[in-house]
Amino acid sequence: MRVYLVGAGPGDPELITLKGINALKKADVIIYDNLANEEILNHGINAKKIYVGKKAGEHYKKQEEINEILIKEGKDNENIVRLKGGDPFVFGRGGEEILSLIENNIPFEIIPGISSAIGIPTRLGLPITHRGISTSFTIITGHEDPKKKHKQVKWDYTADTLIILMGIGNIKENTKEIMKYRREDTPVCVIENGTLKNEKIILKTLKDIGDEKINTPAILIVGEVIDIYKKIKSNSK
Amino acid sequence: MRVYLVGAGPGDPELITLKGINALKKADVIIYDNLANEEILNHGINAKKIYVGKKAGEHYKKQEEINEILIKEGKDNENIVRLKGGDPFVFGRGGEEILSLIENNIPFEIIPGISSAIGIPTRLGLPITHRGISTSFTIITGHEDPKKKHKQVKWDYTADTLIILMGIGNIKENTKEIMKYRREDTPVCVIENGTLKNEKIILKTLKDIGDEKINTPAILIVGEVIDIYKKIKSNSK
Repeated sequence: MRVYLVGAGPGDPELITLKGINALKKADVIIYDNLANEEILNHGINAKKIYVGKKAGEHYKKQEEINEILIKEGKDNENIVRLKGGDPFVFGRGGEEILSLIENNIPFEIIPGISSAIGIPTRLGLPITHRGISTSFTIITGHEDPKKKHKQVKWDYTADTLIILMGIGNIKENTKEIMKYRREDTPVCVIENGTLKNEKIILKTLKDIGDEKINTPAILIVGEVIDIYKKIKSNSK
Repeated sequence: MRVYLVGAGPGDPELITLKGINALKKADVIIYDNLANEEILNHGINAKKIYVGKKAGEHYKKQEEINEILIKEGKDNENIVRLKGGDPFVFGRGGEEILSLIENNIPFEIIPGISSAIGIPTRLGLPITHRGISTSFTIITGHEDPKKKHKQVKWDYTADTLIILMGIGNIKENTKEIMKYRREDTPVCVIENGTLKNEKIILKTLKDIGDEKINTPAILIVGEVIDIYKKIKSNSK
């Protein structure tokens, strides 16, 4: 028995790795949630598919419940794939799942995926690093409850470019925090449904992005590299 | 004609994407440099291969020379692949190459790759984010000349985890800078030849890593998440 923790990549089903496809092909079971595109499941020709994400009107399965399913399926099967959007260790709670497998003596292997934080801007032509403009970037979860008493996310990040995942619900509060440290006319780019056919780009500034209507999944990028993207975009064919 | 800027991923040839492989398969020319593993070039069955990286005793080709080769080959061929290690927009100077293609009216497409900064720790079982420990990480180039007068890299990054690419040559100077902002016993992990058969892990602290003999390519990770990795590592099978 072995559990493969596999990153599905940012959305476009061709942006999964060869190693990820090979794991799906030999899987007896695929345990998945929140994929930007479920087409990717078709590689698992012989696999039972178990969805552990949110259903309309229901709550997310608790992490403990997911761990229990992983352990049960891990013990009952030869090849188990735990499939996650993006990369399994970028806000994917992959570490917690691995620790739970270890406690239960279940062998595992981790297959990285392209994180949405990098793959979505790159595919678009938005260089998150650029000579003379950006020599560092920070990737943050924007999901932390802004009313939480002891916040771990402080927003005083000094990297040249910021990339915020899962932050659309709190975008007004988050951009307000970021404006304490950056000019309010700093360019921002929101990408809805990145790398998919219904991808949508919104170009604004820190000051005015909070008023936009944004559909999820979406990521938020902040920094001067967006000016390079504008130049690339207006000349693309 | 079309130039495909393709990310080869961190090293393991199975960690390239399906879309990247498809571009290599139909390539007439592949222009490549500094790949962790050249096996990946075998997908380009019919392609002329042009190496534009460093040769023993020679200097790197200047970026302007690489741009010229790209433009010449772009005009002479139908499908051109520009192959880069990791992701083309993470310190890959991909933006500069795209701007040069635009100036010369050559159409392009960008195919992301798994950045070494994320793919190497993930494959290893080192979670760069972990609930309660790391809700943010910063990726930095450590390549900037420490004697440069106006440095863009300041090292006062407040993200929970730091990941430094191309910084082994300056590791003593860089860790000294980081210790101005972090405890000197902060755990660090160096990964040489990540995802390859000769991968080597060095676990130390900020204070003592500068004295190690390190072979390149290698990446440096700084932060408390390394304690989670130690727990995962000692229990892996």
